[in-house]
Amino acid sequence: MHVSNLKLYRHPISGHSHRAELMLSILGLDYELINVDLKNGEHKKPQFRKLNMLGQVPVLVDGDTVIADSSAILVYLAKTYDKTGAWLPDAAVELAEIQRFLSIASHQMVKGLVTARAIKLLGKDLDYTAAINESISLLNLLDEYLNGREWMVGEQHTIADIALYTYTKLAPEAGVKMDIYSNIRHWLGNVESINGFISMNAKK
Amino acid sequence: MHVSNLKLYRHPISGHSHRAELMLSILGLDYELINVDLKNGEHKKPQFRKLNMLGQVPVLVDGDTVIADSSAILVYLAKTYDKTGAWLPDAAVELAEIQRFLSIASHQMVKGLVTARAIKLLGKDLDYTAAINESISLLNLLDEYLNGREWMVGEQHTIADIALYTYTKLAPEAGVKMDIYSNIRHWLGNVESINGFISMNAKK
Repeated sequence: MHVSNLKLYRHPISGHSHRAELMLSILGLDYELINVDLKNGEHKKPQFRKLNMLGQVPVLVDGDTVIADSSAILVYLAKTYDKTGAWLPDAAVELAEIQRFLSIASHQMVKGLVTARAIKLLGKDLDYTAAINESISLLNLLDEYLNGREWMVGEQHTIADIALYTYTKLAPEAGVKMDIYSNIRHWLGNVESINGFISMNAKK
Repeated sequence: MHVSNLKLYRHPISGHSHRAELMLSILGLDYELINVDLKNGEHKKPQFRKLNMLGQVPVLVDGDTVIADSSAILVYLAKTYDKTGAWLPDAAVELAEIQRFLSIASHQMVKGLVTARAIKLLGKDLDYTAAINESISLLNLLDEYLNGREWMVGEQHTIADIALYTYTKLAPEAGVKMDIYSNIRHWLGNVESINGFISMNAKK
């Protein structure tokens, strides 16, 4: 292991941070985790806002390059460090399908599973019923979609799988039982069998 | 003009649909607009769900290829029909920065400007104050970000500009005054000066 230039600003409870770490780990990269003190508002202070104007984790710093947003980090890492090209294929249709799942990760998943988990875990004052309905609706669709599929897009893993993995895995923390979603559970297992997979907060 | 294979399923009031149409028009493509009767729930019926399991416009059909999600359509069109490569560059950092703005278009913009407009225009039973706060917060950030910039990413237009254009332009319909956002207004003008630009519902 050489001294790493890759620093991931994150928080241990943040599923968005885990997405980024998962990709770093799977690509076999050496990286340093830097905890951002969300509880004391460190992410809203000017120093952190220089890294991300939105004041959110995760942010990846790679030498002089700063990338905010978990989906953007997945794109950056795949494009820079995946020599196989498998994680972010170049073909138009596959690229568009991946984008579609990145949009779902930023929209329906945030509205549903991310919000429901934040209410349960952090006591956020938001509409839990609405968040659960959105979660169930998305999980129903994904389970049907994954029928007969091993991966979200095409015949092999892509960044779409990484983008959707964490909050789906964390659904029980959001108060959602996953028993009935057998296709989703099979797919979660596929992601977990990828070489280099790392669970949330497994790294010391 | 040849007979078009490109069909855009859309709704005249949908800013997400306009994003897709804007890209079609700017790339000089011949396309057919097909209105989906959202008012009568056509988008939630099985026939439409075959095109998009989420039951949302826009959907692009290009021969045998079906692409749902406005960001995914931008990616598909740029990758397939933009021979210059300018709209979706191949470099990792630019691609990641574009992704970041696509994420903003799917998350903060939906939570803010899209929702506020839906409340105003369609009377949706959602929290207007929350949507306006989110809108103002994003517009403040974007206006600061655009200080000294002509485009969202790098030195020329990309799909990031197209993804953010429509709902920013429609902010007054959401109840937001744009007077103070001089950098944003300058950028809106830049997008409108692109060859092939088409306003919402300009096509007969």
